[in-house]
Amino acid sequence: MFTLDSRLAEDTFPVTRLALCEVRLMDEPSWPWLILVPALPDIREITDLGQDDRTRLMEEIIQAERVLQRLYAPDKLNVAALGNMVPQLHVHVIARRTDDPAWPRPVWGALPRSRHPAGRGQAEAARIAAAFAEPAAADG
Amino acid sequence: MFTLDSRLAEDTFPVTRLALCEVRLMDEPSWPWLILVPALPDIREITDLGQDDRTRLMEEIIQAERVLQRLYAPDKLNVAALGNMVPQLHVHVIARRTDDPAWPRPVWGALPRSRHPAGRGQAEAARIAAAFAEPAAADG
Repeated sequence: MFTLDSRLAEDTFPVTRLALCEVRLMDEPSWPWLILVPALPDIREITDLGQDDRTRLMEEIIQAERVLQRLYAPDKLNVAALGNMVPQLHVHVIARRTDDPAWPRPVWGALPRSRHPAGRGQAEAARIAAAFAEPAAADG
Repeated sequence: MFTLDSRLAEDTFPVTRLALCEVRLMDEPSWPWLILVPALPDIREITDLGQDDRTRLMEEIIQAERVLQRLYAPDKLNVAALGNMVPQLHVHVIARRTDDPAWPRPVWGALPRSRHPAGRGQAEAARIAAAFAEPAAADG
């Protein structure tokens, strides 16, 4: 059985569920920052996924990137699977702007942690979920 | 025509050429650190790749991960496409150990830049190239 790691659950809002991944929004208002978590038990590395699931993961990363491109028109996307703190496989997909507060550094550890004001994270997660539901998000 | 970005060329040693990507070894002895560069012109984001090339990219990331797992037995792999400094799409695949000098932080900017002693980077790149050439590296 898949269970979302408790630290990931605590740090994020639910956005939507794709064929492979749970999509979550980081509770960190400095950047539009999604996390994709393959909803399978005991996955730490991408090499733990079978080939079909790896292809699915890549296509769901692409969906997430397109949603961020459409909603936020970022200057650059950052995609990363690190897992040094939380070993459950999760892929960060982050919309960066050249005027964002950490540019050009990576976001991890760049700023003191902040959180969305009450209600804002859920509202943003709902707006992102609506973008995932639009047909364009699934285009090849 | 594809041309490797001059900063990537300057910072790395050539390892091997796969169907899609040039594989390079970072000239940074603190971590076993590969860079995969899709050998196509004008690619900044993974979304700039067609679906077949995205699937190829994922499988070549897996090959690189397996080579690092076999040679270095890392505690964790880090995979990332950032591109904030060098926009040409390149994917970092890094072998991490819980006793490495930046753990658990990401490697970028964690330490002052160091370089391999003369000849060591090329020798390590040759060892890694040999591991890519072994049949196990291409297994599904």
